[in-house]
Amino acid sequence: MIRIIKTIKEMHQIINNHKDRQHTIGFIPTMGALHEGHLKMMSMSAAENDITVISVFVNPLQFGPDEDLASYPRDIEGDMSKASSVGVDYIFFPSEAEMYPSEPIIEVKAGRLATVLEGAERPGHFDGVVTVVNKLFNIVRPHKAYFGKKDAQQLAIIEKMVEDFNHPIEIIGVDIVREADGLAKSSRNIYLTQDERAEAAHLYQSLSLAQSLYDHGERNSETIIKAMRTYIEEHTSGHVETVAIYSYPELVEQYEISGDIFISLAVKFSKARLIDNIIINK
Amino acid sequence: MIRIIKTIKEMHQIINNHKDRQHTIGFIPTMGALHEGHLKMMSMSAAENDITVISVFVNPLQFGPDEDLASYPRDIEGDMSKASSVGVDYIFFPSEAEMYPSEPIIEVKAGRLATVLEGAERPGHFDGVVTVVNKLFNIVRPHKAYFGKKDAQQLAIIEKMVEDFNHPIEIIGVDIVREADGLAKSSRNIYLTQDERAEAAHLYQSLSLAQSLYDHGERNSETIIKAMRTYIEEHTSGHVETVAIYSYPELVEQYEISGDIFISLAVKFSKARLIDNIIINK
Repeated sequence: MIRIIKTIKEMHQIINNHKDRQHTIGFIPTMGALHEGHLKMMSMSAAENDITVISVFVNPLQFGPDEDLASYPRDIEGDMSKASSVGVDYIFFPSEAEMYPSEPIIEVKAGRLATVLEGAERPGHFDGVVTVVNKLFNIVRPHKAYFGKKDAQQLAIIEKMVEDFNHPIEIIGVDIVREADGLAKSSRNIYLTQDERAEAAHLYQSLSLAQSLYDHGERNSETIIKAMRTYIEEHTSGHVETVAIYSYPELVEQYEISGDIFISLAVKFSKARLIDNIIINK
Repeated sequence: MIRIIKTIKEMHQIINNHKDRQHTIGFIPTMGALHEGHLKMMSMSAAENDITVISVFVNPLQFGPDEDLASYPRDIEGDMSKASSVGVDYIFFPSEAEMYPSEPIIEVKAGRLATVLEGAERPGHFDGVVTVVNKLFNIVRPHKAYFGKKDAQQLAIIEKMVEDFNHPIEIIGVDIVREADGLAKSSRNIYLTQDERAEAAHLYQSLSLAQSLYDHGERNSETIIKAMRTYIEEHTSGHVETVAIYSYPELVEQYEISGDIFISLAVKFSKARLIDNIIINK
């Protein structure tokens, strides 16, 4: 039976109890509105650990003032049923007052990794992410934590935090789960109109195009980026905010491609801002 | 038998082993050059926990460019013998390269609590402290951690970090240990000349004077501060850098005293900069 836990104190007691019994703990932090991308991580965790904990917390610190905090999809009943079906044991579902009883004074900052790409588009976003994930790691104290590669910059930042902070946690990056037509699963896909939903498949097509150019030997970033922009503009009504090629996980912009990279995009539709990427290992 | 541990990996293994056996762990982070103030905390920890771990690490991040990093006293042999005598089980004694294999990118900042008092005198100092203590907490994962009240601002900042970060750790503030004449024990006292050492007892006398004024009903901070400054200037050759009255643990300057406060001083002698304080609960 899956259990919903609302307080940090109770979560601590439950974790202590499992640790005393030498259970291994897998953890997936989420903002709820669970989709197959999340469920894949939960299934992996359930297979690899004695106990799987997820958190459902729409973290206000990682939303900008003009972003979709108020309208972000919330469905704890549906989340509970989905999580239960893939073997999750506990949902940590705290209130905002439980997580931030007062304004945090001791700050966690993502530093230069937050100054590029999504971080540049969303000032403060990754500071909010590392602030809440650091807290959640101390509350749940997992052996393994799972993060989707869809948020590749987030994954790189979390991995660096674990290294810099010496969290005794193994971070598992999990491949993007896609719809049949290639669209990356996302809680924000529900904001798409029917026409936009059909067009959105072309975002992945543009990444496949980039992969194909790379496979045929293209190493000039500008050439690949131009081809992707043209493709997206010709096939969708979305506004292309970003198409970029950065080293991974160091997050340094690449002009001529040599090592491991990720190619990422952000496209704004009428109500949904979608991101996607591919990571290419040399 | 006390053991010296030099790597994070080995420390993790040892802690895991003790946690599997449900041992409680007490922890005292130090920069070495152990004196009776440290040893009191270690004795307390040895009495209250199954296992006591100390760290000896002169943390470069918490020293300013003009401070005494290079000359800070180091004596690991002496430290080992002293720690052993009060029941310490492990000394975590990492190299700088072990703690900072590369420059940390994800930053911990002490925020507004670091903008006053010692933090104002030593820019970056408390950011360095929270950075290293957060790492050490994740490496040692103690049940209880002990900090001296001599560094009262540090204690307040660490307590706030534990609250903001949800570290599952109980912080124990330990009373200042003093020499027979009242001088607070400090690793930096060895920098005092013989004359200065005699004068330095008057620092505590100035705090006792403040306590006496308070006990007789004085609630105006300026009056108490002026009396202390005059007393120190008349009885020592030191340069009075700071005499201040702040709320504790919120660290807000107090003009008229109402709640819990701490009265602190920083005095610069020829080679030693000494700090001391008293905390007065309403």
